[in-house]
Amino acid sequence: MFMRIDKLQAALPEPKKPDPNAAAALQELLGGKYGEMSTLGNYLFQSFNFRSKSKLRPFYSLVASITAEELGHVELVSNGVSMLANGPGDPTENVDLSAAPFKEMQDIRLAGSFLSNGGGSMPMNSNGASWNMDFVTTTGNVIIDLLHNFHLECGARIHKLRVYETMTEPTGREVCGYLLVRGSVHAHAYALALKQLTGVAVEKMLPTPNINLDRIPECQKYLAEGSHRRLYRFSPNDYSEMSGIWGNGEQALPGDPPGALEVVDGHPEGGKISDLTGNYGAFTPDYAPQEMFEIASKIYNKSR
Amino acid sequence: MFMRIDKLQAALPEPKKPDPNAAAALQELLGGKYGEMSTLGNYLFQSFNFRSKSKLRPFYSLVASITAEELGHVELVSNGVSMLANGPGDPTENVDLSAAPFKEMQDIRLAGSFLSNGGGSMPMNSNGASWNMDFVTTTGNVIIDLLHNFHLECGARIHKLRVYETMTEPTGREVCGYLLVRGSVHAHAYALALKQLTGVAVEKMLPTPNINLDRIPECQKYLAEGSHRRLYRFSPNDYSEMSGIWGNGEQALPGDPPGALEVVDGHPEGGKISDLTGNYGAFTPDYAPQEMFEIASKIYNKSR
Amino acid sequence: MFMRIDKLQAALPEPKKPDPNAAAALQELLGGKYGEMSTLGNYLFQSFNFRSKSKLRPFYSLVASITAEELGHVELVSNGVSMLANGPGDPTENVDLSAAPFKEMQDIRLAGSFLSNGGGSMPMNSNGASWNMDFVTTTGNVIIDLLHNFHLECGARIHKLRVYETMTEPTGREVCGYLLVRGSVHAHAYALALKQLTGVAVEKMLPTPNINLDRIPECQKYLAEGSHRRLYRFSPNDYSEMSGIWGNGEQALPGDPPGALEVVDGHPEGGKISDLTGNYGAFTPDYAPQEMFEIASKIYNKSR
Amino acid sequence: MFMRIDKLQAALPEPKKPDPNAAAALQELLGGKYGEMSTLGNYLFQSFNFRSKSKLRPFYSLVASITAEELGHVELVSNGVSMLANGPGDPTENVDLSAAPFKEMQDIRLAGSFLSNGGGSMPMNSNGASWNMDFVTTTGNVIIDLLHNFHLECGARIHKLRVYETMTEPTGREVCGYLLVRGSVHAHAYALALKQLTGVAVEKMLPTPNINLDRIPECQKYLAEGSHRRLYRFSPNDYSEMSGIWGNGEQALPGDPPGALEVVDGHPEGGKISDLTGNYGAFTPDYAPQEMFEIASKIYNKSR
Amino acid sequence: MFMRIDKLQAALPEPKKPDPNAAAALQELLGGKYGEMSTLGNYLFQSFNFRSKSKLRPFYSLVASITAEELGHVELVSNGVSMLANGPGDPTENVDLSAAPFKEMQDIRLAGSFLSNGGGSMPMNSNGASWNMDFVTTTGNVIIDLLHNFHLECGARIHKLRVYETMTEPTGREVCGYLLVRGSVHAHAYALALKQLTGVAVEKMLPTPNINLDRIPECQKYLAEGSHRRLYRFSPNDYSEMSGIWGNGEQALPGDPPGALEVVDGHPEGGKISDLTGNYGAFTPDYAPQEMFEIASKIYNKSR
Amino acid sequence: MFMRIDKLQAALPEPKKPDPNAAAALQELLGGKYGEMSTLGNYLFQSFNFRSKSKLRPFYSLVASITAEELGHVELVSNGVSMLANGPGDPTENVDLSAAPFKEMQDIRLAGSFLSNGGGSMPMNSNGASWNMDFVTTTGNVIIDLLHNFHLECGARIHKLRVYETMTEPTGREVCGYLLVRGSVHAHAYALALKQLTGVAVEKMLPTPNINLDRIPECQKYLAEGSHRRLYRFSPNDYSEMSGIWGNGEQALPGDPPGALEVVDGHPEGGKISDLTGNYGAFTPDYAPQEMFEIASKIYNKSR
Repeated sequence: MFMRIDKLQAALPEPKKPDPNAAAALQELLGGKYGEMSTLGNYLFQSFNFRSKSKLRPFYSLVASITAEELGHVELVSNGVSMLANGPGDPTENVDLSAAPFKEMQDIRLAGSFLSNGGGSMPMNSNGASWNMDFVTTTGNVIIDLLHNFHLECGARIHKLRVYETMTEPTGREVCGYLLVRGSVHAHAYALALKQLTGVAVEKMLPTPNINLDRIPECQKYLAEGSHRRLYRFSPNDYSEMSGIWGNGEQALPGDPPGALEVVDGHPEGGKISDLTGNYGAFTPDYAPQEMFEIASKIYNKSR
Repeated sequence: MFMRIDKLQAALPEPKKPDPNAAAALQELLGGKYGEMSTLGNYLFQSFNFRSKSKLRPFYSLVASITAEELGHVELVSNGVSMLANGPGDPTENVDLSAAPFKEMQDIRLAGSFLSNGGGSMPMNSNGASWNMDFVTTTGNVIIDLLHNFHLECGARIHKLRVYETMTEPTGREVCGYLLVRGSVHAHAYALALKQLTGVAVEKMLPTPNINLDRIPECQKYLAEGSHRRLYRFSPNDYSEMSGIWGNGEQALPGDPPGALEVVDGHPEGGKISDLTGNYGAFTPDYAPQEMFEIASKIYNKSR
Repeated sequence: MFMRIDKLQAALPEPKKPDPNAAAALQELLGGKYGEMSTLGNYLFQSFNFRSKSKLRPFYSLVASITAEELGHVELVSNGVSMLANGPGDPTENVDLSAAPFKEMQDIRLAGSFLSNGGGSMPMNSNGASWNMDFVTTTGNVIIDLLHNFHLECGARIHKLRVYETMTEPTGREVCGYLLVRGSVHAHAYALALKQLTGVAVEKMLPTPNINLDRIPECQKYLAEGSHRRLYRFSPNDYSEMSGIWGNGEQALPGDPPGALEVVDGHPEGGKISDLTGNYGAFTPDYAPQEMFEIASKIYNKSR
Repeated sequence: MFMRIDKLQAALPEPKKPDPNAAAALQELLGGKYGEMSTLGNYLFQSFNFRSKSKLRPFYSLVASITAEELGHVELVSNGVSMLANGPGDPTENVDLSAAPFKEMQDIRLAGSFLSNGGGSMPMNSNGASWNMDFVTTTGNVIIDLLHNFHLECGARIHKLRVYETMTEPTGREVCGYLLVRGSVHAHAYALALKQLTGVAVEKMLPTPNINLDRIPECQKYLAEGSHRRLYRFSPNDYSEMSGIWGNGEQALPGDPPGALEVVDGHPEGGKISDLTGNYGAFTPDYAPQEMFEIASKIYNKSR
Repeated sequence: MFMRIDKLQAALPEPKKPDPNAAAALQELLGGKYGEMSTLGNYLFQSFNFRSKSKLRPFYSLVASITAEELGHVELVSNGVSMLANGPGDPTENVDLSAAPFKEMQDIRLAGSFLSNGGGSMPMNSNGASWNMDFVTTTGNVIIDLLHNFHLECGARIHKLRVYETMTEPTGREVCGYLLVRGSVHAHAYALALKQLTGVAVEKMLPTPNINLDRIPECQKYLAEGSHRRLYRFSPNDYSEMSGIWGNGEQALPGDPPGALEVVDGHPEGGKISDLTGNYGAFTPDYAPQEMFEIASKIYNKSR
Repeated sequence: MFMRIDKLQAALPEPKKPDPNAAAALQELLGGKYGEMSTLGNYLFQSFNFRSKSKLRPFYSLVASITAEELGHVELVSNGVSMLANGPGDPTENVDLSAAPFKEMQDIRLAGSFLSNGGGSMPMNSNGASWNMDFVTTTGNVIIDLLHNFHLECGARIHKLRVYETMTEPTGREVCGYLLVRGSVHAHAYALALKQLTGVAVEKMLPTPNINLDRIPECQKYLAEGSHRRLYRFSPNDYSEMSGIWGNGEQALPGDPPGALEVVDGHPEGGKISDLTGNYGAFTPDYAPQEMFEIASKIYNKSR
């Protein structure tokens, strides 16, 4: 079972204006082969299909718990995409539809993101291709699945780095910065799991690509708070068994601030979810939503 | 953010033997157009892209909270699939690979489910086609998205009913029984949301298809405990605002046991996740996993 | 069986110049999830698979007849796309291929539309993704299929509105204007069919999105002629039974010009199909087509 | 524009029992690369995108008119599929859902055809893969498009022959028999068009594969009535210009009954569309449809 | 550039009878995510996109050379598929098409393989889903690409093992046996490449899954000849630089026959390609091919 | 079996600067329906599935040998794509990632080509859609397969011509020029094969589109050396039997420089493969690759 908390894992700054092509670039980290839908999808189905859970409890817990974090990553990138595509919103009423108020949307990279989704995020990559099961590996063999996951997180890291290198505005950069720190944790965790099972010091391949996070300003506050050394349980009561893998004397990677790895109860503090003021002219939430707002307000009052 | 709890939303009986074609049928409820990946994917992205969340809080809360329940539905069906495909497992060691120990797997409907996934579930439908973004509608317009969701839940109901009608063994039947009750709640909830916003008594279309759940034995215990009148918040602290829609004097549908609708804190009691004893001959978790089990046992002890 | 008439359902003004990105935007209304290929595909297969046609004749006739109109919608949008991409054409002979005469085609949004289709329309959406069966719902259950269709037409309406809002030139705007009127008829018709079967006043949800067509100049001549109150039979002799649903005292929607709904024999007057003068330099119809034209002229004379 | 007539192009015998795997085989002729959706899709979009229509009128008319016939082919195969999958239907009321009334549907080749479509046809091939735009060629170049079409019809012929060779029951065999005759006409017609434009006697490649239709009993009545020498205009007033290609002294192919080719006004006599009695236990048209039938009956009476 | 030699990399025994479901299982090793099309596609595009080839020559040579071997693997599996689906062939003339000579083909797992391909292989997996670019990783980063390749070969191994475990006839078993040996070489090679670049003893993870090839009878003759210690250059003059990775004192894996690794000039001896006697009744090579054979014979004589 | 030679079939000039949209246009010739992956995929699988190879040897040899050439075409276009996307490369060290060094990559047509592939080629078309098996026809019937191939090469020619017409820089133009000459050879060859088998003078349809190669400056040196009259065997010892088709008195097409057709031993001289200097800032081959270069240098020395 899963529970939901109405916050993001990290606070995202509100964009000053719509930036649809930045949103489109960020989609690579959402629905690309190495995006968050893929990390989520792999760990989700691997955790469902995990064999001999009781006998392999620490490994099962690791995969199951990281799954919950990946859900929040999907949420974070999606919010980034819709914030960038939407900008501060435009609650102008009585927009003149016949004046081509969105003519510039014909020239954005993924015009369908406006035409169909009103700027909302979708499970697709930066070229508009859908996420699909071809990105999921779940063999039921523990070594192969973990090895796949280690490779996946390394691949995800280069994608995050490249998307970051195209970003000029703060919302998307913050998304990348946060995910780079957390993705490094996951790569490190899978490396340690493989080391336990095979004796091979896989974590010595890190960081891949060959660059430390001290080069990314947006990563610094997360590194400073020790995020790179923490695996959150993302569960009220479960998954503590992964501390035998993440913990147990293992240390932060050499290029990161030093310290022991630790499993942390609960979840990060996180940040507020954007209210996403709509574009009434684009029918989000609708063309003339005042009556709708009044109905919602009455219902809201009844719910308290 | 999301949290995970190491339980299923409903207890599933363990299958007595592998039944790969039953598992393949159940896949329709996982990755089909009207399967749980679709309800999840729609509500997940709609909640991310929801406009004017603060002004439309009860409606946002409804979609956001049901999303969390759908995650558990995906988990439930996936567990059902892998349990049916796997059966009680076979921890025989030293299986003779050269004796074609899995020759019957050439003739199961979705041979790739064995060959690639070792019997594990995947985000695909009963014909092996991948779930993809073509199943997601997120327009940013509240009425259209809710109308889509109402249609989606009605469509999901006919799929669940038909899958149920093909099932002879208890694991898959239980999955269908539970989901039929909960899916009816979601159809009802979206109908009430539409009624609030449009004044149209949409819930009078229910049940669709035209059959009450009293015809399904596996639904009875859930109806008896009032599950059809409950929306769980699936959140420690959030989403209570949906009680203005689900609640507020609204009653159970005429064909179901009577009573008032209510928003319930937390989540259902749920049931244990199957341990899924592997087939060592199929390399799940591996061919000779004893050393792996010992490593895990040591790590587990350290984690306590 | 189907018959074809060499006219469009509405006259389209000829574009003054090629506008490939406008053509690409219009593709959303052709091959998108909520485009005309989807309305066509759904009603086509639902009419093929309709059960108990004789006992449910008015409902069957409604779906079967609208199918024929949708074929003309696909034709209309496709013509709009190819006209916009092609512009007035360029029958210059002896174009110098080595001078990169189409260099600007590298930068249009869907370069493949030029490279592969010479500017022709294709069954794909505005991002270049193919139309496919994932957009077709045909359950064989009458309520679910009609409910799906009602949702589909509402969804189609928001897509048409948004595409319209990006259009600055008359060809594409006319396509949108015509389709908005006719799509509203179809949404209204499916609402009335559902009302007959369920007793729920579904048509009170209209218009969705929340805007009347009097805001769209291109819709006015169609409203003035009463197009919003007419369902054409699009058949020499069949489908009149739908008048029990569309007709039978039912009236135009409140926001539209008032009057009774009526089933109309035959089809609308329609308009001429563009001759689409080719680009000889792009090998449409070929690089040096004069001999081809002469052959055609001789054959044409023989056919008279 | 298109008109619809409530008949099939050929009469199909009613099947005695459901035969889902025969239906699945027939799907190859519907949604396969060389199926009727492909011939339709190619000619539909080629006719929309045809350049210099007025100067190339006979060729345009040929493609545009055959498009209309292909619509009827799609309809014919689709009806064949749903008839075979459905069989005579089962209007039993109060089916006991809990007795696994459709348990055998887990083992049919395309279980999703039952679970999702209730036995209805879909635009997919015999392996359940969707028809899509990758099967459409529309270059805007007349020679290449016609050459593609000639190859397509030859390819379609081998698929029809092979599907026929797997069929033991009359419904599917009749579909194949009719389509083999009409497909041969289309291959012949495109060959003659190419001959006109290039001087190459392409029709001498026919028949491909190397077998005459006199070997197929189901083809004989169509050959006897001269169907292999006829191109129907499938239009009230248009497309007669193709008689300069199909006609004009050209004769039937050597292996077929002799005679001159001719363009025929209108359309073939055709046959009745099956009523498709539903399976109430499968919710087609619904579980307890009597009230629905009564409503329809009242509406029907009002429409007369 | 590539050259072709008219032999297979290994000799395959001719099957005694058609075995379409065995052929379908083997398709997983051809077009599945971890099949030979994927290993080919990854190394092909990585070799094209390899950066700083001159400075990283041994690594480039390794990837480029293995690419050539993978082409032969695709060929080997494809031949296995078509041999199994075809069996010894049936050159009966004048087959009675109307007697449903291939009725049993309606019930094979992938009926389209007969209907469309006449039993031929296609780039698809065992469920009939197409190979596609989602299976290709080419980041341009050497470490990530090599890590991907190592994981890919380990994943490919479990797929080969499972397909083997379903095979009862010699053709498919031989394909698996050969590929298991050669795939192990490639996994080992990528491990050594990673060890050179990162210092991590990746090869110590092998074999994965946890079983030695001495358990597979069909592997023994290849092990005996030392195939597991050999990388063929598959080139007249190039790629010898990879001997610094494969060679250079490195030894066979502990579970395999001992010995030093070595780069071998040229290619393995290989075996004859099956003549694949067709089914004239299935139009392969055609229904009445005698004239075709005579033409070919004359041409052949002229070519000598 | 296949061998590889470390050269391209033609020398490509190095681009002066990155030109990602030119690279994206060139992708149409790589992974489009009528691109080189398609010609390769069709001939590859047709050669694997070819029936009665010994009795139809000249035809088998033709298809099998051209397959080998197509591999080199895929290589040539891929190199062209990666060269254009990459440009001269940028081995700057210590690039400041936080300065958005690749911000312009958000606006290129296929941003994923940078974000995921670092500018590398992929098996996709100019709109970013994947190559897949829907582009492969392998019926096992010799006439149909050859007819398909003839149409495919004609279709490929119009695509090459149009891509060429968008190209302003030399790398992409050279790719097109070379492929136009060689593609014409293949169209001609399949035409001659069909003529042998059917007696129809198919080659008289050429050239299609209706333009000679003397209009393309980049073709002239290849025409001058007689490339249009040559089929290379691309094999050490095999495939000479095709000289009965290509040769045997047949002559160059009328619009090309005159002369007899001939089968040529071996392969063309070809040109050097670009070294593709990476962008260290894009992590190709990595961010700080000096250590990697040193390792490679040591290994290289050992390999000599």
